[in-house]
Amino acid sequence: MKTSRILAIALSLPCLICLPVAIASDVAPAPNGIMLPGNYQDWRVIASSSRIDNNTLRVILGNDIASQAARAGNTNPWPDGTILGKMVWKNTTLKAWEKAVVPGEFVHAEFMFKDTKKWQDTGGWGFARWTGLDQKPYGKDADVVNECFSCHTPVKDNDYVFTHPASLPGS
Amino acid sequence: MKTSRILAIALSLPCLICLPVAIASDVAPAPNGIMLPGNYQDWRVIASSSRIDNNTLRVILGNDIASQAARAGNTNPWPDGTILGKMVWKNTTLKAWEKAVVPGEFVHAEFMFKDTKKWQDTGGWGFARWTGLDQKPYGKDADVVNECFSCHTPVKDNDYVFTHPASLPGS
Repeated sequence: MKTSRILAIALSLPCLICLPVAIASDVAPAPNGIMLPGNYQDWRVIASSSRIDNNTLRVILGNDIASQAARAGNTNPWPDGTILGKMVWKNTTLKAWEKAVVPGEFVHAEFMFKDTKKWQDTGGWGFARWTGLDQKPYGKDADVVNECFSCHTPVKDNDYVFTHPASLPGS
Repeated sequence: MKTSRILAIALSLPCLICLPVAIASDVAPAPNGIMLPGNYQDWRVIASSSRIDNNTLRVILGNDIASQAARAGNTNPWPDGTILGKMVWKNTTLKAWEKAVVPGEFVHAEFMFKDTKKWQDTGGWGFARWTGLDQKPYGKDADVVNECFSCHTPVKDNDYVFTHPASLPGS
């Protein structure tokens, strides 16, 4: 293979080189078999939220497919291959600016995996959550998905997703 | 140059290939000459906040140097080359979950550029802000930096930065 061809491939597949779709192999899978995506902390921002009913802050991230779909406005339905990740922290207050609520203790990271065939019984989405900084799988058995899905059913018309991508320049 | 060597270079410099440090050349510079960083929307999350005094949500992002410093706990001082970007939205409420405050209208993106020599008169930081989705430079002239710096002076002991990196698994 010629040098130039290799370089062309390398430059045309930046995300496969930089941010491989990987799993965090040192973390136990969720009860339904879903593995924690590796490098999710590096994903692009989709939105954020502040839950005033349980005093938590959230940042919603997306893998490459999700990020591209969000910026293209192609989110109802989200395309297969989408992974949405939500990082959740307990609220705390910034000492230097007391009217600023900021992330305190890390609570959990939870994910939605879009695969219309694999997860056809739950709206095309696989659900999983890992709690705490030690990332323990949430739920006793695979039925935990019903807890997730029932909560998301009221937003069926938004492809079972609560999040709306935040407005961004250039997107 | 051998194929393997090119590939090794490509793999060892992922960020230069994927996320080049670029400027948004179609956006006017700030009054102090600072250019809007290109691709800042793709940067990694450093933290988030909810300002209850002015009803805005914020996500704080960092370039590669900032992200690596945040995860290594190397933020007081932040290293030269750090760029911190804060995206700000007016609050709105999620219709499907009324106790969730979520991003509404995009307000502005503001940045701190660490260069201890270049910006020695303002704590080693260059400040700039672009407002709205059309990203208009904020401020009439270069003196606008004094507005920024005076606000940040109370957090001199935290290298003039309000943000504390959020706790994340694996960091």
